[in-house]
Amino acid sequence: MMMFDPIGWVRAQRREADDDFWGGVECRIELADGYGADALQGIEEFSHAEILFVFHHVDERNVVRGARYPRNNPEWPRVGIFAQRAKNRPNRIGSTIVRIVRRDGCALTVAELDAVDGTPVLDIKPVMKEFLPRDEVRQPSWCGELMRRYWAKRAS
Amino acid sequence: MMMFDPIGWVRAQRREADDDFWGGVECRIELADGYGADALQGIEEFSHAEILFVFHHVDERNVVRGARYPRNNPEWPRVGIFAQRAKNRPNRIGSTIVRIVRRDGCALTVAELDAVDGTPVLDIKPVMKEFLPRDEVRQPSWCGELMRRYWAKRAS
Repeated sequence: MMMFDPIGWVRAQRREADDDFWGGVECRIELADGYGADALQGIEEFSHAEILFVFHHVDERNVVRGARYPRNNPEWPRVGIFAQRAKNRPNRIGSTIVRIVRRDGCALTVAELDAVDGTPVLDIKPVMKEFLPRDEVRQPSWCGELMRRYWAKRAS
Repeated sequence: MMMFDPIGWVRAQRREADDDFWGGVECRIELADGYGADALQGIEEFSHAEILFVFHHVDERNVVRGARYPRNNPEWPRVGIFAQRAKNRPNRIGSTIVRIVRRDGCALTVAELDAVDGTPVLDIKPVMKEFLPRDEVRQPSWCGELMRRYWAKRAS
């Protein structure tokens, strides 16, 4: 067992972890007590950051340790929990690359973080090109189908 | 405080967390007891995976919560710990995109994971194109200098 302390929390309009329509959504990450503005110093020089956070609404009893159908859709192949990015995974950690919008002191406004209000944040890392894939990315076709509306904007 | 359990461990040749020369290095991730081969089912359909792991050799007392010079190099700007990817960060979590080499039952062989032997692994996620940056990545120039030999191969 290892213990982790949130370094901040997400302040967002969205309160329910819907599967789709995260396009253009903005939210704030507010650092926890004990962190000053210097912890974020210089982050605005980067266009993107990687946010590690906890899917805190997932009940531990619903965590899958074997295989399942992504989104419980039997039209897609049944794959291991480590071959999909489902929320109900061991340790319930999410990792998403967001656009940095602005920094105000101890708060960072980001775009397209797929996390709800109150989400505990474990880390913020700047995205460096050198840490992105250095050769072609290949994935099975179900991913494109699953992600079709993920970054779409919700019709208002 | 939140508790996490390693889902596996890194078995690697490298025992010291050198700053550079991770190019071409292969290692194995062996799943912890309680996970079967089905947890990794289908992962070989992806070219890349994202590995979340713990920098377990970093002493908690050396964790930086404010700003520092990347690699302690005063020729680069002093930036916040969340504007750099240094090991000695709050929660000490690393996140690296690796190439998937092969799967054998409950073990996954990957290339270019910058983690030493015995590293606890918190998660394995498949890389989907849709979760990579969807617009141009911009970063300060010190990153390119810092990363110059990171993925280079060590002269033998």
